[in-house]
Amino acid sequence: MELWYTEKQTENFGITAKITKSYVHEQTEFQQLDMIETEEFGTMLVLDGMVMTTVKDEFVYHEMVAHPVLFTHPNPENVLVVGGGDGGVIREVMKHPKVKKAVLVDIDGKVIEYSKKYLPTIAGELDNPRVEVLVNDGFMHIHDHKNTYDVIMVDSTEPVGPAANLFTRGFYQGIYEALKEDGIFVAQTDNPWFKADLIQSVNRDVKEVFPIVRVYGANIPTYPSGLWTFTMGSKKHDPLQVDESAIPELDTKYYSPRLHKAAFILPKFVEDLVK
Amino acid sequence: MELWYTEKQTENFGITAKITKSYVHEQTEFQQLDMIETEEFGTMLVLDGMVMTTVKDEFVYHEMVAHPVLFTHPNPENVLVVGGGDGGVIREVMKHPKVKKAVLVDIDGKVIEYSKKYLPTIAGELDNPRVEVLVNDGFMHIHDHKNTYDVIMVDSTEPVGPAANLFTRGFYQGIYEALKEDGIFVAQTDNPWFKADLIQSVNRDVKEVFPIVRVYGANIPTYPSGLWTFTMGSKKHDPLQVDESAIPELDTKYYSPRLHKAAFILPKFVEDLVK
Repeated sequence: MELWYTEKQTENFGITAKITKSYVHEQTEFQQLDMIETEEFGTMLVLDGMVMTTVKDEFVYHEMVAHPVLFTHPNPENVLVVGGGDGGVIREVMKHPKVKKAVLVDIDGKVIEYSKKYLPTIAGELDNPRVEVLVNDGFMHIHDHKNTYDVIMVDSTEPVGPAANLFTRGFYQGIYEALKEDGIFVAQTDNPWFKADLIQSVNRDVKEVFPIVRVYGANIPTYPSGLWTFTMGSKKHDPLQVDESAIPELDTKYYSPRLHKAAFILPKFVEDLVK
Repeated sequence: MELWYTEKQTENFGITAKITKSYVHEQTEFQQLDMIETEEFGTMLVLDGMVMTTVKDEFVYHEMVAHPVLFTHPNPENVLVVGGGDGGVIREVMKHPKVKKAVLVDIDGKVIEYSKKYLPTIAGELDNPRVEVLVNDGFMHIHDHKNTYDVIMVDSTEPVGPAANLFTRGFYQGIYEALKEDGIFVAQTDNPWFKADLIQSVNRDVKEVFPIVRVYGANIPTYPSGLWTFTMGSKKHDPLQVDESAIPELDTKYYSPRLHKAAFILPKFVEDLVK
């Protein structure tokens, strides 16, 4: 018997992956959590029926959340990751020696627990002494920490379920206030093929709060359409003004200093969405 | 009853699309040809069980085959398209007034016939008076036309079936000879996630024949991994030396003058494949 995991990424389109094992199939306090072993992409974390990360392609998402913003801020000492309980973004953040402390706030402790167990290559740095892991509501954490962070990264699920309030103008306003005077934030903002409306509304909302707003993209095979977008809101520093020749070559597989600005040059139809 | 088209893009991974109709299901002289109506991507042409083009996302592939090379050559008067019987590349080529004549050579007349019937928004320019359509073997056509073309575009299927000899060093040598002294060619060269070996071997072969070899990428949701590569071989003109500010803004949805050079800046793991 062959087992295949099929995810309907839209009502009418999806991906299907052959699996060899199901490690976890559990309704947590917040969402349905599945950890499965796929032939093509290795171990895969699925939340509410949507691929969150896989061992084979996780590097794209995690590198592209962390490095563009950390190489835009000149001195990112205090970093907050909202969501991201699998630890992948934290692992990339830890590659930056300038970061003195990174706080991870995920609402669902089960994501952290199972990622440590089944995704050790992703979650390994959650135990780094520079990291503080909190199981808490990111929205509330933001609200309670004014003028605290240099960089905030929103590594959330889709705007359904526990992450719904992470895609609101009120959340972006809270992020603005939680950032220091030259702070920057970045959020994953889905794909332009099936979720053009979301990208547009986030862009509109972030522009009402931040003076500098930039959108960039990256190719993630297991995410809908294969093209993922990220929206950056900044008080002062512009990612497009960074001197690429001054960016050090990190141990990465997707991000490079050469890609730093190129990632912001979007296909025309995406450019048009965020004009 | 719901009907879904499922394509195994690898042994262990695939895409699945809800369909409402099957227009054509035919074994031609060269390949299995299917024309189906999908809910998400509109009409879809499938050859030997692989998506070739869809009404919704075809613009990416067709624009990205045609415009980077045509805006690299200063005077692309004579153009050859090998394969591409759906007419999408020809439609983009016709947006360039400098092109006096474009020859399309597809081995399978059925692709042309059914594309004209079921994909009129893609195939419409096949009747342009500047276009000559030949049903013939592209490999032989290349062999018989020395020193003839300014630009050659290889819009082939995968290197199985009728297109197998379009991925050989001998074919690239033939293309070199069919090009004029400052000619350029471009070929689709699959995706870096599942076909890294192919990209590497093509790159090696093309480098043995052409002094300037460049690889670029584009996001195509219905193609494996969502990231497609294209390899350009050039005798004289370098796509990275083009003055982007001199490129006119065409009626496109993916390609833009801003993207011309950015498309060549690849993710690090792809860069490493073609070093």
